[in-house]
Amino acid sequence: MRVLVDMDGVLADMDAGLERDWQALYGDEPLIPTEDRMGAHFAGGHPADRVRRLRSVAAAPGFFLSLPPIAGSVESVTAMREMGIDVFICSTPLSEYEHCVTEKYQWVEGHLGREWTRRLILTSDKTLVRGDVLIDDKPEVKGLDVPSWEHVVFDQPYNRHVTGKRRLDWMNWRFVLLGSDEN
Amino acid sequence: MRVLVDMDGVLADMDAGLERDWQALYGDEPLIPTEDRMGAHFAGGHPADRVRRLRSVAAAPGFFLSLPPIAGSVESVTAMREMGIDVFICSTPLSEYEHCVTEKYQWVEGHLGREWTRRLILTSDKTLVRGDVLIDDKPEVKGLDVPSWEHVVFDQPYNRHVTGKRRLDWMNWRFVLLGSDEN
Repeated sequence: MRVLVDMDGVLADMDAGLERDWQALYGDEPLIPTEDRMGAHFAGGHPADRVRRLRSVAAAPGFFLSLPPIAGSVESVTAMREMGIDVFICSTPLSEYEHCVTEKYQWVEGHLGREWTRRLILTSDKTLVRGDVLIDDKPEVKGLDVPSWEHVVFDQPYNRHVTGKRRLDWMNWRFVLLGSDEN
Repeated sequence: MRVLVDMDGVLADMDAGLERDWQALYGDEPLIPTEDRMGAHFAGGHPADRVRRLRSVAAAPGFFLSLPPIAGSVESVTAMREMGIDVFICSTPLSEYEHCVTEKYQWVEGHLGREWTRRLILTSDKTLVRGDVLIDDKPEVKGLDVPSWEHVVFDQPYNRHVTGKRRLDWMNWRFVLLGSDEN
């Protein structure tokens, strides 16, 4: 089994980083709520200036590197590999790629080890990557191809409306993916 | 048709960059010959210290960004897109990723335009990426999967021994890929 694992909102806590850096810059000014944020893919209907400033927060140097891991994420993908699952991290960089791309490699090296940087795939279209499962927090993952993978939703507040797809978090992934908590 | 195009030795002139920077650092000391270099995938049988120093040349800041385009490469991939071919650039970063990954995006932006950075895929395993054709200068492109693409060899001095595969350069690609020089 090959499992593709999304990075922002699945391994790295994008929400925590946005909230931390927004507050540092803009204090009590309200942030776009998490259910409209979906990482950095902001829903419409918010003031253009606020959206622009929030994108700037994500594009700033040090943002990606400083994201805390989502609890259990590092341990879970490490455990997957130990049980023989072929794991690749599959991430779409911001179009403001300048800091983001190197920092994604650095984040993987820092939290998972340098050998894992060979398991990082950067692509704007995940349907072009072959796998059995893609664990992703986006409600829908679209691209040019019919995906080869099954989209398993990584549970987040902004994707609770999604039905008809398997859903997991880093507590129950063994049961959802393998049908057993045994391993 | 989706065409995946390798970057080093196909779009960007890795050989020219290695020769230029090696000479600047080490003057007349002989460089590992191009047929043993294959980009930065050096063949065995050369002094370990020389291989290490040559890798350092490729890993240095500014190396990838400063590579000249291979003659005709930029015009060819631009023409492919204009005729409706779905083109993605598919590149394996050095394991010394620190400068290489951002500079690959910068190179694509500088020579092809920012919109093309969404068409750059970074992966250590190209067999995981779906396409009809992969244009690559490596004699063999291996990975975990049976490729979905046909490997079309981009003609270079170090792959002339390869037989049984289609071979192209930026002069004859229309004829090789499309069977016609008409477009």
